[in-house]
Amino acid sequence: MVEVKKKLEMLGEDVLNDINAGKNPDIDIPVRSLSNVIYDEKSKQLTLGNKVSKRFLFNVAHAKTFTQTMMIAAFCKELQEEGIHTSLRDLFYALKKTFPNSNENTFDEQSESDPIVVDLEVALDVLREQLHLNADVRGRAAGNLIIEDRGDTIDLSKLGTGGLAIPSNVEDMKFKKVKADYILVLEKNAAFERVHEDKFWQKQNCVLVTSQGQAARGVRRFIQRLSMEFDLPVYVMCDMDAFGFYIYSVIKYGSISLAHVSDRLGTPKAKFLGLTMDDIDNFKLHNFTIKAKEVDIKRAREMLKYEWFKSKEWQRLLKSLIERKIKAELEALSGRGLKFMTETYLPQKIKNEDFLD
Amino acid sequence: MVEVKKKLEMLGEDVLNDINAGKNPDIDIPVRSLSNVIYDEKSKQLTLGNKVSKRFLFNVAHAKTFTQTMMIAAFCKELQEEGIHTSLRDLFYALKKTFPNSNENTFDEQSESDPIVVDLEVALDVLREQLHLNADVRGRAAGNLIIEDRGDTIDLSKLGTGGLAIPSNVEDMKFKKVKADYILVLEKNAAFERVHEDKFWQKQNCVLVTSQGQAARGVRRFIQRLSMEFDLPVYVMCDMDAFGFYIYSVIKYGSISLAHVSDRLGTPKAKFLGLTMDDIDNFKLHNFTIKAKEVDIKRAREMLKYEWFKSKEWQRLLKSLIERKIKAELEALSGRGLKFMTETYLPQKIKNEDFLD
Repeated sequence: MVEVKKKLEMLGEDVLNDINAGKNPDIDIPVRSLSNVIYDEKSKQLTLGNKVSKRFLFNVAHAKTFTQTMMIAAFCKELQEEGIHTSLRDLFYALKKTFPNSNENTFDEQSESDPIVVDLEVALDVLREQLHLNADVRGRAAGNLIIEDRGDTIDLSKLGTGGLAIPSNVEDMKFKKVKADYILVLEKNAAFERVHEDKFWQKQNCVLVTSQGQAARGVRRFIQRLSMEFDLPVYVMCDMDAFGFYIYSVIKYGSISLAHVSDRLGTPKAKFLGLTMDDIDNFKLHNFTIKAKEVDIKRAREMLKYEWFKSKEWQRLLKSLIERKIKAELEALSGRGLKFMTETYLPQKIKNEDFLD
Repeated sequence: MVEVKKKLEMLGEDVLNDINAGKNPDIDIPVRSLSNVIYDEKSKQLTLGNKVSKRFLFNVAHAKTFTQTMMIAAFCKELQEEGIHTSLRDLFYALKKTFPNSNENTFDEQSESDPIVVDLEVALDVLREQLHLNADVRGRAAGNLIIEDRGDTIDLSKLGTGGLAIPSNVEDMKFKKVKADYILVLEKNAAFERVHEDKFWQKQNCVLVTSQGQAARGVRRFIQRLSMEFDLPVYVMCDMDAFGFYIYSVIKYGSISLAHVSDRLGTPKAKFLGLTMDDIDNFKLHNFTIKAKEVDIKRAREMLKYEWFKSKEWQRLLKSLIERKIKAELEALSGRGLKFMTETYLPQKIKNEDFLD
């Protein structure tokens, strides 16, 4: 694999060569709109099609974006050379300047620089994290896992109640040793803390991860790498509502807006553990469900049409949500007692392999 | 100090004694509305006044709340006895039941159980965390600090890029050893990661903390305990806008809604390091400011009237924000280079003790 710095230099050299040859320099940017997003049944991933648009320097409509693209690429090359990382917001401030002898700014809003970073990510086929641009940070982990990060050896079985704060960028993290049969991902931190306190990872031999809501890029990459490098199954537990199901699907298949990096952020092996409508019935959780809102029903109707929710089981679950007009949170299990999740629900579901794929 | 379990038992015994004596049982609940919130100049803390309201069992308006209070107190006693912790949401589900022979539920919404937990916190003079009810979780830390948490010894100088995930509940955490001259609190994680990558805590001998926005209770308690137990000064760095200033003031003085626990969550020693309007002028950050929104100006006007912002320096800063109608984010410092904060801004401000109190 060509290293990131080399790719950035090649981009610059191509433009220079065009200029020296008297040609109008251009960059190829793959199209990222929904029309070019494809669900690949075989790899089980959302991915980009072949549509490409060209960005020219000498074109009234492209000139500014072309210049901005070059500025950001040059900035990323500096980050590589200095060995430092930063955020999208900082990148915007660092590059915000007024062009000499004009009133025109290089960038007026961060909404101008953000999409160009994604353009570069797609055009160069690298992750934003490899460009040294860090994403939002969220997510924690605990279990029999030893990692190495920035020279430190960290034992995830010895991090107290908090667990590992998963960094925004896990590209340089090394997984040194793992003793686990599977990875359990919980949407909510409260459930993670409860299960962690009951030493579930020790008793059941697993690695616990919480995404704390929609999974940030760092968490998705962490789950993917851990699952792939050690061939570990991944079980995801979310609220029983359209938003919970979508959190699961993003971990597994990737997201529509980041379809170009599904292969590096998605975990095709992930399975949905719960909550399901069958759980509500089998574990007698009826008293702890909530009336679904209009927005939940609407979102569930949309998801019925997604290619990656077309299996019989998912269609049945989505339809039952729409018909019965109820939803449920992970905390509903506490209605059966605070240790019900650790001692009954999870062991039973996992033993019976009662998952949705 | 009377232990938490004992306090809960005494509450129950008082009610029982009233019943046995043929009296109408009642509980004293200190009033928590703004009319009873006082700024104590001497302790530099928001605190509650002396107003108390009584809650009776045999009173049509009180009967349900009285019962709910007893249910939650009993639940908290069980948590103590079993040695487990949970969240407010789980408590709600665990106690949601239908009264026998009726259509009446114990609790219909979490908005009924949450305020009663705070009532108990005030009435018993204990922290919610001591009742084993965990709050939202946010915040990270790194530095020359060794802690003990749930039997694990954790060295905060060896936790890679992520640092310590500060748990929601730090009551049982022990600070074993610290080598630091001060605590630096950064509102934003991006700034924390940048400063952490530059090994600022190592070079400057400090403990780094990020609150990741408004400080959660766990982070506030973490900062307070660390500062008090080792007599460490605390410098807080937030965006230059009304919301950033308020984040600082909550860390220092406590918040209006949680005035009853300021003594256990507030850090009177905290000082505001920046960003200030003088920073904008002195460090030439004009190009990186943002136009203030109407809501920023309005909030700044309100804060002008708060007792705890009455010092000459704060009044000057708030007024300059209103007059110049600009604000600035921590990331503005990146306009002067990505290492400007670590190498120039922070060392200079700290050396000159250029703080607001």
